[in-house]
Amino acid sequence: MPTDLDIARAATLRPIAEIAARAGIPDSALEPYGKYKAKLSQDFVAEASARPAGKLVLVTGISPTPAGEGKTTTTIGLGDALNALGSRTMIALREPSLGPCFGVKGGATGGGYAQVLPMEDINLHFTGDFHAITSANNLLSAMLDNHLYWGNELGLDPRRVTWRRAMDMNDRNLRDCVVGLGGATQGVVREDGFDITVASEVMAVFCLARDLADLKARLGRMIVGRTRDGKAVTAADLKADGAMAVLLKDALSPNLVQTIAGSPALVHGGPFANIAHGCNSVVATRLGLGLADVVVTEAGFGADLGAEKFLDIKCRLAGLEPGACVVVATVRALKMHGGVAKADLGREDVAAVERGVVNLARHVENMHKFGLPVVVALNRFTSDTAAEIAAIQQAMARLDTEAILCTHWADGAEGAMDLARAVKARLDRGAARFAPLYPDAMPLAEKLRTIAREIYRAAEVTIPAPVAQRLARWEQEGFGHLPVCVAKTQYSFSVDPTALGAPSGHALPLRDVRLSAGAGFVVAICGEIMTMPGLPRRPAAETITLDAAGNVEGLF
Amino acid sequence: MPTDLDIARAATLRPIAEIAARAGIPDSALEPYGKYKAKLSQDFVAEASARPAGKLVLVTGISPTPAGEGKTTTTIGLGDALNALGSRTMIALREPSLGPCFGVKGGATGGGYAQVLPMEDINLHFTGDFHAITSANNLLSAMLDNHLYWGNELGLDPRRVTWRRAMDMNDRNLRDCVVGLGGATQGVVREDGFDITVASEVMAVFCLARDLADLKARLGRMIVGRTRDGKAVTAADLKADGAMAVLLKDALSPNLVQTIAGSPALVHGGPFANIAHGCNSVVATRLGLGLADVVVTEAGFGADLGAEKFLDIKCRLAGLEPGACVVVATVRALKMHGGVAKADLGREDVAAVERGVVNLARHVENMHKFGLPVVVALNRFTSDTAAEIAAIQQAMARLDTEAILCTHWADGAEGAMDLARAVKARLDRGAARFAPLYPDAMPLAEKLRTIAREIYRAAEVTIPAPVAQRLARWEQEGFGHLPVCVAKTQYSFSVDPTALGAPSGHALPLRDVRLSAGAGFVVAICGEIMTMPGLPRRPAAETITLDAAGNVEGLF
Repeated sequence: MPTDLDIARAATLRPIAEIAARAGIPDSALEPYGKYKAKLSQDFVAEASARPAGKLVLVTGISPTPAGEGKTTTTIGLGDALNALGSRTMIALREPSLGPCFGVKGGATGGGYAQVLPMEDINLHFTGDFHAITSANNLLSAMLDNHLYWGNELGLDPRRVTWRRAMDMNDRNLRDCVVGLGGATQGVVREDGFDITVASEVMAVFCLARDLADLKARLGRMIVGRTRDGKAVTAADLKADGAMAVLLKDALSPNLVQTIAGSPALVHGGPFANIAHGCNSVVATRLGLGLADVVVTEAGFGADLGAEKFLDIKCRLAGLEPGACVVVATVRALKMHGGVAKADLGREDVAAVERGVVNLARHVENMHKFGLPVVVALNRFTSDTAAEIAAIQQAMARLDTEAILCTHWADGAEGAMDLARAVKARLDRGAARFAPLYPDAMPLAEKLRTIAREIYRAAEVTIPAPVAQRLARWEQEGFGHLPVCVAKTQYSFSVDPTALGAPSGHALPLRDVRLSAGAGFVVAICGEIMTMPGLPRRPAAETITLDAAGNVEGLF
Repeated sequence: MPTDLDIARAATLRPIAEIAARAGIPDSALEPYGKYKAKLSQDFVAEASARPAGKLVLVTGISPTPAGEGKTTTTIGLGDALNALGSRTMIALREPSLGPCFGVKGGATGGGYAQVLPMEDINLHFTGDFHAITSANNLLSAMLDNHLYWGNELGLDPRRVTWRRAMDMNDRNLRDCVVGLGGATQGVVREDGFDITVASEVMAVFCLARDLADLKARLGRMIVGRTRDGKAVTAADLKADGAMAVLLKDALSPNLVQTIAGSPALVHGGPFANIAHGCNSVVATRLGLGLADVVVTEAGFGADLGAEKFLDIKCRLAGLEPGACVVVATVRALKMHGGVAKADLGREDVAAVERGVVNLARHVENMHKFGLPVVVALNRFTSDTAAEIAAIQQAMARLDTEAILCTHWADGAEGAMDLARAVKARLDRGAARFAPLYPDAMPLAEKLRTIAREIYRAAEVTIPAPVAQRLARWEQEGFGHLPVCVAKTQYSFSVDPTALGAPSGHALPLRDVRLSAGAGFVVAICGEIMTMPGLPRRPAAETITLDAAGNVEGLF
C-alpha cells in the first residue's frame, strides 16, 4: 500500500492557472506562489463574492475516536465526485498548523486518493498566512509592552493583561513565562505565555473577517487587558490595528490549490476548534460560493462542537445558509462508541455497532434541529461486514437519513459518487431551512444553556458566581449579543471524555469564560483547554529530514 | 519632492519572468511569488553557480554617521549604471527585517530612484525566508526543552544552554525571560531570551551555506549548550538538524526582484553585522556570479566591520575573490567626522571636510590591504560645495583613488554612470590581488589582534583571563581554524562611538566571545551588543495602516 506521501508525489499536478481557469478565475486575479499555489487578488475576491451564491455543504462527523473517521478525506472526495457529476464544486478547507507536523499528527491535507496538493508545501509554510498571523499577534504584544515601558498612558494593569504571545510551534515550555527581566532598560516584568498561533484571537478574527476593512475593525476591537478599575484596553487603544492589518493584508487573500483529481480547493485560515470556531475563513467560503455551484467545507471535531460553531458562529456572523450537511462515521468508530477496544475492532460485532450508532444518531438529530438535510457518509474499511453496515443503515432509516458507503480514500472521486448523488439530490430538493440555534438577543448564559440542552443533552449548566458576574458585566458593556463558543472535550457529548455513545442528563460545568471581542464571540470553557501543545518523547521532528536529492522525508 | 514610496508606486514593474529572461534565467527555474518576485529552483541554482564566475564588486562605506551615506542606493545605482553600460550586472542585497520597519528605521530597499521593488513586499513578509528561519530556530528551542522535559538523556545543563529563541520583531520585553513555569507538566524552568531573527545563528548559517546539504551539516554543528562537565551539545545531538533543514528548504532558493530601472536583483538572507557577518547569502552571490558579468553587493556598517567580515568570513568560507571595492561617503558625513554637528551641515566648511576625510582615507587604505582596487562614491547633496568636494578628491588622489560624484538617488542609473565607468575600468584592468587579512591557521586571539592592528589601528587588545581560557578550549576542541567576527560599535574605529575621524593607538578590550560553530566563526564581543532591539516611544507601527483602498500607508 503506498503512503499518502507516495500517492501525493505520484500525482500529476496541473499548473495552478489551469485549475483557476476551470474554476472561472482569470489569470489577472492570480498571485502565484510557485507553480501550484496561488493567492487570489482582493479585488477579484470582492467582485466574485458578491455574485449569486452557490450551495454550501458542511462535512462534519461523529464524536471522534482513535479509530478515525476521515472528515477531511470525505470533504475532498465529495468535492471531487460532485465535480465528476458536473456540479461546479469548490472545496474549502483549513490550513494546517506547523506545530503538530513536528509532533505526532502528521499532515492535515487528506489522505489516500483524497488529498489536496502540493501536500508538503501546504503542511509546511504554504503561502505564509500563519506566519503573518503570528507576526501580527506578536507585534501587538511588543506594542503593549512598549506602552508599559514608556509610561503606560492608558493605565493598563500589567497583572490584568490577557493578551498572550503566539508561536506556530508545539512548545510547552512557553505556556507560562515571565518576560521583561533584566532591569529598568530591558522592559517591564510581568507574567506572560505563548499560545500556538491557531489558538490566537488574531486567527479567529482573520477567519471571520469579510474583507480588509472588517479585518482591521475587528483587530482594533480585540481586548488586550484591563485597567485597574476594569476598563477594557483594546488593540485600537494601542494604535496597533493598522500595522497588524498591514501584516495581514496579503494573507487575507484566499489560497487556491488542487486535489489529486484536479478539483479547485481553497485552503485558508485554521482556527482551533476549542477556544475558537474551527473552520476555514469566511473570505474563502464566500468566494467559493460566488464562483461555484457547490462549496464543500469542513468543521473541526464532532458535530456537537464543530458543526454547532460553524452554524451558530460562522454562518450567523457571515450570513451563510448551508444547504445540506454530511455526517461522517465509520463502522470501526461506532464500534468504539459501542464499547469495543481499539485492538478488537477487527472482529464483527453487530451488537456493538447497534450500541454505538446512538452517537451518530444524536449528531444527525442535532443537525436536523438547525434545519439541515443530512446524509451520512460511511468511510469503508476492509474489516467492515455487511451486517454491521446494515445495522447503521437501519438506524439511519429510522431518522429518514441515508447512510452511504464511501471508498474515496482508496478510489478517489469514484469512491464518493453515491455520496455525491445523495448530497446533490438534497441540494436540488432545496429542503434546507437553516436557522441558528438561538437568537442574538438571548443572554449569554442562556445561550450556553440552550446549546447544552439541545446539543449536548445536559440536564444542567453550573456557573460559578464570579463567572456569572463576568458574563453580566460583558452584557453591560454591550457584548451580550455575541454567540457563545464552547471549549470542551471533543470525545463526548458530556465533559467526560470516556463517556462515549450518547450520554444525557449530565451536568455541564462552566469553569471560565473569555471575551473574544474582535472575533466576536464569548468562549465558554467547560473542561481542560490546551492552547499550546507539547511535543511527545520522540517527536516526529527527529525523523523528518531532507534526503540527498533535497526531498522531504518522514513528514507523514 | 516625492517620497520613496511615491516613487516606488509610480514605477512600472515588469513581470518577473521578463527580468529573469534578461538575466539568463529560464522560466522553468522560476518559482513565482506573486507577479514581481520569484525564487529560483535549487537545481538551476546549482547548475548556474558552477559556471565560470563573473566579477564581484563590494560596496562598503565610511564609519556611519547620522548624516547618512547611502550604501544601498549606491549598490543599486551602480548596478543599474553597469547594466546601462552593457555589462550584464546582477545586484545582491540583504533582505530587510520586519522588526525595524515597525520601529524607526523604515524600509531597507534603497531610496529615491535607486530602489528594489516591490518595496512594500520586500520590507514586509517578502517570500517568507525570515519566517522560515524563525521557525527553524524555535523548533530547535522546542526540541531542546522537550529533551530536558523527557529526562535529558544528553545531560545538557539547563544553566549552560546558550541557544536562545528568536522573533522577527523589535521586542525588548523578550530579551530576558524565564520559561517553563507552571509545574511539572508544563516544562522545565530555566532562563531564556529571544533575539531578533537576523541575530540568530540560523541566519548566519543560512547565509554561509553553499547548498542544502551544507546547510543541514552546518545546522547540525550548531552548539546549543554544554553538559555539566563542559561537553558541547549540538543541534544534531538533539536530532533537530533534519527538520530544521526541511523548514529552510524553500527559503534557501534565492529571491529575484528588480530595480526601478529593471536590473535583476537577488535579495536573500540578512544577518546582523555585529554578531554575524552582515551580508547577503553565499547562495545568491555565487548564483549571481554564475549568471552575470558583474555582481554588485553590499556589506553592513562601515568598511572596518562590514567589509572586513565580508572579506575575511564570507569570501574566505565561500572561496570568493572580489575584483573591486566601492567606498561610499558624503560631504556631510565627512564633515561630521570633522567635528561638525548635524544641525550645522548646511554651511560650507572645507576645513571640517579636510579633518573628516581621514575616516574615508583610513577605510580606503584598509581595503588596499586586502589587495582590492578602490573607487570612492560621493553621494551628492545639494548643499555640497565645489571646494568641499575638491578637498575630498585631493585627499583621495594622494591614495591613488578616484572619488566620483553620484546622483543616482535623484537621477537613477544616469547618476551613477561615472562611477560605473570607473569601476568597470578597475575590473577590466584585473588589478585585484585579493587575500584575506590572516590565515586560517593563526590562533584565534592572534586573528583578533591582527584585525585590531591592521584595520582599527588599535595599540593593544586586552583579553580577560576567562575569555582567553575559552578561546584556548575552543582551539583544543578543533575550532581554532575559524575566522573571527568582531562585534563592536560601527561608529568609530575604536570602541568609543564618539571617537570619529581616524583614531589610532587605542585599546580594544575583548569582553566576551561566542562560538558560532555552525556558521563557522568565533564572535569577539568588544562593546555593547544588542541582539534584540526595542521600540521607540512612538513606534512607526502606530502610524502604519491600510487606507480605504487597501494600500499600505506610513511604512516609509
